[in-house]
Amino acid sequence: MEKLTFTDRMIEAIKEKKSILNVGLDPQLRFMPTHLVTWAFDTYGRSCEGIGHLFERFNRETIDAVLPFVVLVKPQMAFYEAYGQWGVWAFEETVRYAKSKGLLVITDAKRGDGGDTAQAYADGHLGEVPIFGGTVESPIRVDALTIHAWIGSSCINPFLAAVKKYGTGVFVVDKTSFDPNSEVEQTITQSGLPNWQELAKMVQKWGEGTEGKSGYRNFGVVMGATYPEDAEVMRQILPNAWLLIPGYGAQGGGADGAVVGFNKDGFGGIVNSSRGIIAAWQKGQFQCEPEKFAEVAAKAAEFARDDLNAALKRAGKMNW
Amino acid sequence: MEKLTFTDRMIEAIKEKKSILNVGLDPQLRFMPTHLVTWAFDTYGRSCEGIGHLFERFNRETIDAVLPFVVLVKPQMAFYEAYGQWGVWAFEETVRYAKSKGLLVITDAKRGDGGDTAQAYADGHLGEVPIFGGTVESPIRVDALTIHAWIGSSCINPFLAAVKKYGTGVFVVDKTSFDPNSEVEQTITQSGLPNWQELAKMVQKWGEGTEGKSGYRNFGVVMGATYPEDAEVMRQILPNAWLLIPGYGAQGGGADGAVVGFNKDGFGGIVNSSRGIIAAWQKGQFQCEPEKFAEVAAKAAEFARDDLNAALKRAGKMNW
Repeated sequence: MEKLTFTDRMIEAIKEKKSILNVGLDPQLRFMPTHLVTWAFDTYGRSCEGIGHLFERFNRETIDAVLPFVVLVKPQMAFYEAYGQWGVWAFEETVRYAKSKGLLVITDAKRGDGGDTAQAYADGHLGEVPIFGGTVESPIRVDALTIHAWIGSSCINPFLAAVKKYGTGVFVVDKTSFDPNSEVEQTITQSGLPNWQELAKMVQKWGEGTEGKSGYRNFGVVMGATYPEDAEVMRQILPNAWLLIPGYGAQGGGADGAVVGFNKDGFGGIVNSSRGIIAAWQKGQFQCEPEKFAEVAAKAAEFARDDLNAALKRAGKMNW
Repeated sequence: MEKLTFTDRMIEAIKEKKSILNVGLDPQLRFMPTHLVTWAFDTYGRSCEGIGHLFERFNRETIDAVLPFVVLVKPQMAFYEAYGQWGVWAFEETVRYAKSKGLLVITDAKRGDGGDTAQAYADGHLGEVPIFGGTVESPIRVDALTIHAWIGSSCINPFLAAVKKYGTGVFVVDKTSFDPNSEVEQTITQSGLPNWQELAKMVQKWGEGTEGKSGYRNFGVVMGATYPEDAEVMRQILPNAWLLIPGYGAQGGGADGAVVGFNKDGFGGIVNSSRGIIAAWQKGQFQCEPEKFAEVAAKAAEFARDDLNAALKRAGKMNW
């Protein structure tokens, strides 16, 4: 049997769970429920070790709760590495736990460098690292990674090689979901197109040969849910790339906008929600006492899954 | 007394050491001398913990050796994070040790994200992180950081705030030192300029108000030594920004090219060499038995310092 690539495994998971939702595991101290904070402080003291254990437990309980409703989780590396080795410990444990539950994992790290350095990022996040007398699976290895393409081919090639060698996925940061004032993404080029469209055309060229069994490529882009009209353009440029779609929920993107970039087959994208789910206990329709944070994360995830599926149906794309 | 900012402290260090050299601490297993590899393997086994201890000791002995000749060190985070928590442990220890020796430290991480995530990167690399009942200095805190600007203001603003609050420095990845085929950097915009020049103009605008006592800004750019003609243009756009100049030495950039972006006062830049120094024992004029790796790293650093100073003198810029 041919080995399944990242996009093939996403398609299987979407069909099985009837969901296009991914949950961003972006732990911040201000999102942590009081009883877990007290436990971590009492057990480990006022230390980064305590924060690491706090994040690890919060993520584990969140994963258990949202598991039926999501196909993958996306830890944002910034929130872990800010606490140094103990933050990265929590990251490793979270990845390990998510995988043990059958979830796919994308690390949202937006790495971008050239030469040997790009190789080290590709090896570390998507493959194997050199060790005494050979290589071993990297302790931070996941199924897919987000990267920056500013540096060009010297950055892209090691990641492309990793995608082909390991059957993993890469998403190039292209049109993000942040404020409309994204000056570099939107600078107009000589051809009259904004930079993000020029980059999308490069991704279309770079990504050749990364197709999985389904025909979907394992070299895709980040396409913010907050710009539905741009998602249509993105899909035209990249007919069979996978889109990682942040900005749904807390950042203001609606479900109908989030699914614009999906293809008629109901595939080709995955929609992220982070604090709308992991911090659902703090405000909005699911607000509740801190002890029930995981329970309402599950409710928020179920709601988001259904919200997105309804949007797919309205768009005539619910074909799985 | 007014607090000195990052560029002020660099100026003091350059005057004191008569050097514009920075050493890239980019540990790779293939650069490690045999006796240290044996020690790490025998002591810690075939594990990421062993690699962490190997890198930490290699860096410590390298720092001790090159200390008289360099003003700062620049660990490249990719090589540490590929080994997870133990790699980051080595990173933390290296930073701590370099600071204890009076060296300035730039983390070459090329981070780039928006909103809360940019804030977490800025807090983690340049400031304080939230902990139980307040904040603490981050375990990965350094003096300056490299960042990607693709996302625009949502990414830039948290870093600018950190620069102003903590007196630290930021270098935006602009014109890198890798292959000439850096498609995105070089895409021509509507104005007829390449993207990297448009970005430089944005950096000039963004960086207002980040001047230290000397007048040099703490919000600069990466400007590869391999493109001396572009360095002149960069300096015209950014008259008082500091340039981080990689690509000298192993990547093929010569000393005369590397100092093109310096101002007449002999300041305004710092030139990086990584494997040309830390792996000098392996090939080239300083090749020697592995046991003498640190001794020849010192020789290579002394040579590079003198090589760069001679170039500054030839350019009429040796004015400190």
